[in-house]
Formats: sequence, C-alpha cells, structure tokens
Amino acid sequence: MNDTTSRRIVLAAHPHGLPAADDFRLETQPVPAPGEGQVLLRTLFLSIDPYMRNLMEPVGPGYAPPVAIGAAMVGGTVSRVIASRHPRFAVGELVLANAGWQDHALSNGDDLLVLGDMAQPSLALGGLGMTGFTAHVGLEDIGQPRPGETVVVSAATGAVGSVAGQLAKLKGARVVGIAGGADKCRYAVDVLGFDACIDRRGAQFAERLAAACPAGIDVYFESVGGAVFDAVLPLLNVGARVPVCGFIAHYNEAETTTGPDRLPQVHAALLQKRIRMQGFIVLDHYGERFDTFRREMAQRVAEGTVTLREDIVDGLENAPAALRGLLEGRNFGKLVVRVAQD
Amino acid sequence: MNDTTSRRIVLAAHPHGLPAADDFRLETQPVPAPGEGQVLLRTLFLSIDPYMRNLMEPVGPGYAPPVAIGAAMVGGTVSRVIASRHPRFAVGELVLANAGWQDHALSNGDDLLVLGDMAQPSLALGGLGMTGFTAHVGLEDIGQPRPGETVVVSAATGAVGSVAGQLAKLKGARVVGIAGGADKCRYAVDVLGFDACIDRRGAQFAERLAAACPAGIDVYFESVGGAVFDAVLPLLNVGARVPVCGFIAHYNEAETTTGPDRLPQVHAALLQKRIRMQGFIVLDHYGERFDTFRREMAQRVAEGTVTLREDIVDGLENAPAALRGLLEGRNFGKLVVRVAQD
Repeated sequence: MNDTTSRRIVLAAHPHGLPAADDFRLETQPVPAPGEGQVLLRTLFLSIDPYMRNLMEPVGPGYAPPVAIGAAMVGGTVSRVIASRHPRFAVGELVLANAGWQDHALSNGDDLLVLGDMAQPSLALGGLGMTGFTAHVGLEDIGQPRPGETVVVSAATGAVGSVAGQLAKLKGARVVGIAGGADKCRYAVDVLGFDACIDRRGAQFAERLAAACPAGIDVYFESVGGAVFDAVLPLLNVGARVPVCGFIAHYNEAETTTGPDRLPQVHAALLQKRIRMQGFIVLDHYGERFDTFRREMAQRVAEGTVTLREDIVDGLENAPAALRGLLEGRNFGKLVVRVAQD
Repeated sequence: MNDTTSRRIVLAAHPHGLPAADDFRLETQPVPAPGEGQVLLRTLFLSIDPYMRNLMEPVGPGYAPPVAIGAAMVGGTVSRVIASRHPRFAVGELVLANAGWQDHALSNGDDLLVLGDMAQPSLALGGLGMTGFTAHVGLEDIGQPRPGETVVVSAATGAVGSVAGQLAKLKGARVVGIAGGADKCRYAVDVLGFDACIDRRGAQFAERLAAACPAGIDVYFESVGGAVFDAVLPLLNVGARVPVCGFIAHYNEAETTTGPDRLPQVHAALLQKRIRMQGFIVLDHYGERFDTFRREMAQRVAEGTVTLREDIVDGLENAPAALRGLLEGRNFGKLVVRVAQD
C-alpha cells in the first residue's frame, strides 16, 4: 500500500468445501475520495469470523446478504478516519466499522461506532465486540446457567467460546470446554479457569466428555455441530438449554450429508428431555444493549476476571489463508488480521 | 366383567413397528380388595394416547418408566371409588386416576383427583385433562402466539391439536391446521374455526401449506414430525417458536431411519432463522396450574368458545385396536375407551 493505491480482496469464485486460494483475488485500485457526508477509513484491523464462509455461498444465510462474485469480502474492522466530510467524525478518530477486506473504505457514518481511546483497539472486534457480545447474548437469553449447573462450551478457546465459558464461570457454573488439541485444552483450564477441557481430537472423546460431566450437561453452547454435538446430546439433562450460535463443522459441506438421518433421534431427545434449542444471530441485539455489554466487559478485562486472547495475522494478503485456518480450527484465540499499523 | 372377576390387558411382547394384536394379552383375575389406606376403583373411561406406544419399548422415554412384559398397560382413567379404606375418598366418588388398562385398580389416593359432578366425565381425560393441558402449556410457555401471527397446528383435529388451535384463535392468531383427510380438514375449519386446514395426504401438500401461510409461520405446534415437519420448516419465520409435544410419525419406527441426514440442514435453519424449538412433557406442569387450567377450560367449554370432540370406543377388549388406530391417525377427536357404564 502507498498513499494513492488501495488493495482489496474480492470473492473470485464460490468455494467447494474449504475456500481455496483462487476463490479470492487481490485487486488494487486508487484510494477513493469521500463525497459530502462521507468519511474515508483506513483499515487497521480486520476481524476474521466463521460466518464469512456462509456469505461466500451463492445463496446467503438469510441474516446477511451473500458476497457477490467480484465484490470485496465483507467483515468488521477497526478503522481510522483519515478524511472526513461528515460532521460527526473527525480525522484521526478510531471507529468500529464494516470496511471489509480492504485497505480503505468509504462510509456515510451510519454503521460506525466511535471507539475512543483503547489500549488494544483490536479487542473491539473480539471480546469487547461482536464475538464477546455473541457469547453474552447466547448465555443471557438462552443458556441462563444457574450456580452449580454444568455448562459445556465448544470451540472453547475460540473467540466466542472462551468468553462464554468465562462468563458462565462468573455465574457460578461448572464449565467444561471442548477444544481441538492438548495445548488449547491446557490453556482453557490453566488460563481461562475452566473446570475441565476435553480434546475433541483425542481417543474416546465422547467417553472422556461424559466423565468430565458426571452430573450431565445443563447448558451446551453450540458453535460446532457434527461429532461434538453427537457426543453432547446423550449427556444433556432434562431441561437443558442449547444456544446455537454456529455449526462450523458443517460450513464447508458441499453436499447433503449421507445418512442415517439423525433428525428423528434428536427430536426425540428434545422432547423426552424437554430441551430448549434455539438459534440466535447477534446482529439482532445491537443498540443500547451492546453499549452496556462493552462497558461491563471492559471493566472485567481491566480487573482481570476475563482474559482475552488474540491470534493476530499480519497483512491483508494473508486474510484468505487466515479464514481457511479458522475453518480448520488452526487459530488460537480471536483471529484478527492487522492490515495497517495506524 | 362380573362382580368378582376383573379383566386387564397386559403387554405380552415389545412391538415391532405398529403394535399387533398379540403384543397384548387379556387376563382375568379376582377383583382385588383394598388394604388399609387404599381405595378400590372401577374404571369408567380409559384414555388412549400416543405416548403409550413409547412405553411399550424395552427402554422407556425417560419421563415415565416403560411397561414391563406381563404388566398391565398404563393409562389415565376416569374411575369410580367402589370401596374405600381411605379417609379422603368416599364410595361413589368420581376420580381422575391412573388405573391403566384394567377394570379395577387399587390406589393409595396419592395420584387421585376428585372430579366432582361432571356432565361428561370423559372430558377429564381430554380437553379438560391431560391433552387439553398439553395444548395450553405448549402454547403458553413456548409458542406464545401474538395477535395476527400465523400458528400451524399438526394433528389438527386430534386431542391436543384441536385445543391448541382453538386457544391460538382466542389469542388472535391466524390458525392453519394440518390433518389427515378431507373430513377432518372440513371439521377444523367449519367447527373448530381454524382459518384453513390442509390435508397432509393430499397432492402437493407442501405447496398448499405454503399457500395457506402467505406470511410464513410464527408458531408450529409439533406433534407429528416426518413429512409434516419437512413441509413446515422452510416456511418458519425469523423468530419462530416450535413447541414439541410429540413425533407420532416416528413412534413406530423400528430402526434408525435411512439418510440423507437432515440434521445439519435443520440446525442451519434454527440458527439462520433464530428458531426456538423446545420439547415439553406435560407431567412437569401439574399442580396448581392444572387446577386453574381446568377451571378456565370448563368455562370456555360451557360458553362454547372451545369445542371438544371425543372418539369413544366401547369395551376394554378394544383398547389395543384403538391404540393402533390412533397411531395410524384413524381416530377423530380425543380417543377414549368406555370400560364401564358407571
């Protein structure tokens, strides 16, 4: 990047399964100029999140429009206002934005949130932003753990799971994580303070999960699906709650999965155990509630009662590989691309 | 039956698929004598309900123990106290009981509810009892229809569905039933007052259901599963609620169903449309709430704002065929066996 050109990464083709390098294309164009009522943003940090895979399909998931072929990939960003023709935004301000996978973007200000001074602005994309808020909403609105209950969190060291588990601990629950790899599991217990964490890649995963949940499972924070869901289902207690924030195990499935059809068996479990299973999309819950969440979470981070870990990748050009790694579970903490230094 | 012998129907074998005649056995034994603190009950009406099929499996559904081979089939009854060594029950009183598939039963009184004078005591097994209460709880606790919303009720003329639909109408919802056969559908519209009712056996069922729900579906009261669920799923609106009270389409499935596995697709819909799907078992909700329900519902029936239809079969010996017919959808209204005249 220099002062007059700007890079962006566009969707070149709809992926089959895991996104490949040539499903993306890096383009260069002149830095755009803001019109009246617009600001010009320079991207400092770009959030990389699982939902992005869903937006690469020809038909979107409903809660957000799909990315068109040839259009820039979308994504949340921490951006700096570098030119302003908007009365509410001053040059130099740091904002939470949706600039997408590009060095620069224009905005009319409607989707911007002024961040003010932050020691670690990238956290506005993670624990203090969308993914932390996802954990908060799913737990408050659906999971509702009570002291002494057992909460199981999948993707336990990921951006959402790590916060969901820590918030559940603060509510007095026993928290058991599920993560991919021994190092992540150690981290969940030693640093995040979970009561246990089971490696989903290890032998006898289901048996070890059962052993770690001797009183069954009251809340399962679902973001994985697949074999993890299968291991959790028989352990759910009567009256269990399952907030569903994602199914990353299925995002790369190109075809209808083969049988047997597990739906009747899952429905029978829902009925027999009076399980509440409920999807939610964090986009529905912004506004005042997000402001309150940010204040409270910043306080917790400052006190040290919640620990946030980031996995920072340098360079916009590395965003495609970063997304691919995320979908394979290779990140460790909230995945963020550092696009520019300031 | 005479004054000294008593018939009962026991489970002779675990059914494969639909229960067959020789899965049951009619036995005769002496009328038992009540011990101190017991009452002797004569069964007047026996309720026949889909859950009974689940209790015929070697492993029960969890919310109630399975019926052992050689034991009397269980079931709710309206019974008359014909001998009493219990201070709280007088000879001649009518009670709601769990006497099962037999002419006589002993009780220590703990599970009895004195019915008082009722013009139509069998209703205590249906709209004024367990099945009506099931409709009430599912709608109040999970469905929560708002005026103008679209509520779809499966098994629309059945014991639960007919009440669920009428209660939803009273809340100002648009109610679309699903039933098996043109006569049931006509009844749902003409007598129960549903806005529409679609014959699930007719051609282009899914298309006709979609046409009857131009604004989508906000609440789906699920008691069927199978192809009915498949037709409903794509029509569910963002924020839809699905109280799950049964899956009668699957109760006779002997084996795991073949693929494709629909679970990932259903979970994706739950997430994308923020659907709340929740099983419930009415057994959890008795007590004071049931008393209030019975009073209110009796009032509605007296006023004519809720219509209750019964399908009465004469003779205990016909209970097995009645259950089989219920599982095939051949009943029309709440299925009850009249075991004795008074």
